[in-house]
Amino acid sequence: MFGVTILGNNSAVPAYDRHPTAQVVTVNEQVILIDCGEGTQMQIAKYKIKRSRINHILISHLHGDHYFGLMGLITSMGLMGRENELHVYAPEPLKAIIDLQLKAASTTLPYPLHFHVLGAEGMVTENKKFSIESFHTKHRVECWGFVIREKKQPRKIVKDHVLKYEIPAVYYERLKNGDDYETKDGSIIKNELLTIANTAPKSYAYSADTIYDEGLVEKVKNVSLLYHETTYLKDLHKRAAERFHSTTAQAADIAVKANVNKLIIGHFSSKYDSLDVFLEEAKEVFENTELGIEGVTYKL
Amino acid sequence: MFGVTILGNNSAVPAYDRHPTAQVVTVNEQVILIDCGEGTQMQIAKYKIKRSRINHILISHLHGDHYFGLMGLITSMGLMGRENELHVYAPEPLKAIIDLQLKAASTTLPYPLHFHVLGAEGMVTENKKFSIESFHTKHRVECWGFVIREKKQPRKIVKDHVLKYEIPAVYYERLKNGDDYETKDGSIIKNELLTIANTAPKSYAYSADTIYDEGLVEKVKNVSLLYHETTYLKDLHKRAAERFHSTTAQAADIAVKANVNKLIIGHFSSKYDSLDVFLEEAKEVFENTELGIEGVTYKL
Repeated sequence: MFGVTILGNNSAVPAYDRHPTAQVVTVNEQVILIDCGEGTQMQIAKYKIKRSRINHILISHLHGDHYFGLMGLITSMGLMGRENELHVYAPEPLKAIIDLQLKAASTTLPYPLHFHVLGAEGMVTENKKFSIESFHTKHRVECWGFVIREKKQPRKIVKDHVLKYEIPAVYYERLKNGDDYETKDGSIIKNELLTIANTAPKSYAYSADTIYDEGLVEKVKNVSLLYHETTYLKDLHKRAAERFHSTTAQAADIAVKANVNKLIIGHFSSKYDSLDVFLEEAKEVFENTELGIEGVTYKL
Repeated sequence: MFGVTILGNNSAVPAYDRHPTAQVVTVNEQVILIDCGEGTQMQIAKYKIKRSRINHILISHLHGDHYFGLMGLITSMGLMGRENELHVYAPEPLKAIIDLQLKAASTTLPYPLHFHVLGAEGMVTENKKFSIESFHTKHRVECWGFVIREKKQPRKIVKDHVLKYEIPAVYYERLKNGDDYETKDGSIIKNELLTIANTAPKSYAYSADTIYDEGLVEKVKNVSLLYHETTYLKDLHKRAAERFHSTTAQAADIAVKANVNKLIIGHFSSKYDSLDVFLEEAKEVFENTELGIEGVTYKL
């Protein structure tokens, strides 16, 4: 499963039971947390996310609505007996903020916390299940977006064909990786006769907080799912620009230009009680848009 | 009105929809916030506390479950346009923690934030409405309790008597303060003939996190209402002591010895789903005990 669960869809000040930004991305059984606004550990509990599965946390920028829940989460993980290492990727000043608060509490975490400074665009981390790349977004402070890609899926065995050619089962794993099969008499059976390609690997782009920026298009080009903030409706495009945020129409415009498959919008301003208009306005420009609703998982 | 509203009654890790420690004390229309665990700003909204009325925040100690909501609250106050000064009283290291996070966000609060270091036991602040005193409690890190006292109430005018002696209404305020009245011909009408005493001033003691400590008795002697933590039931008194916390029976024991009028208990460990046993056990020792329930206001 590759999916994104929204834990907080509101901007700055929490309102109408909407929470500040946090999302979990599940990819090949791995759970990545993106941003961690105040109350994220409660949202994780509410929506039954397995916090022990979270091994990677990405923090886009150091406005409080994107990270004030981090200290609570990492200390609670410690109190609950976590031993596995945790990787946090964030702008550099967060390191000192974490250390100072652990020191003030005379607390030593019972697990290794590895802090990785986001320093240049490109690959952040990579393993057999997924890769994470970072890119700059244009906001009032240093701010990062991320692209998470699942690793290429192994090829699928065609059962009738492997039986027909009498391929030993012990060889199936190598077939999935694309190897040909060599029979005892030395003849080669081409992999294409035994397997079919799996679905193409999917990708999720989180563009964090950003002013409307066409530079983003190249960075999120062709992703399966794009999350783009829409703090304001389109009539407030001036205010959006002043505050380095985007509107519905602008988010949808990026989705069109980047040729993404689907768009999720979020980071709604507390001035709006109802979210329906956000969806309407975005759909006028990019039809395959959904509101980012807390507790909902959007599958890729 | 003099009352305490519980916003968070759980210890360390939030659970069962119980939140980390926070309380608001309302005294003569002033609102004082004591401790500010993660999610306090949401609790303030949920229970319709007027956040603009909060001018004083007391932080007992720097374990996260007592202050991780502070940054969110003070930055939200700024975003909502607060201009009035705000006073924060806390252990010294919190100043650097606040400053570092404001700096990381390139944020300047639009209102004056006065940080007062808790340094010696005694008067913390005092005005016409109330006074706040601090005292040490015994916890794993530097930790403070507080006594909030309402200021002595003015005397009450006895209407029949002031009419009988033909006292001009303009003089009433001075009568309330205890002054005698001098008639035109120079004779004195004693205040006691014109007014009666108001109710005695009440007091609230918040003893923060603490191991069982009889030294506390003198500090909270005779208060109208005592809040004392009961992290564990009495069978876990050993664990309580190891972690510098108290049990039900110990909290109630302090209430008896300090001759308080009423006890509220809270800071319940996440290992307990139901709270009924806490109340039972405390009442065995001190009858006038109540559970600190979130959203409930306990009047003094």
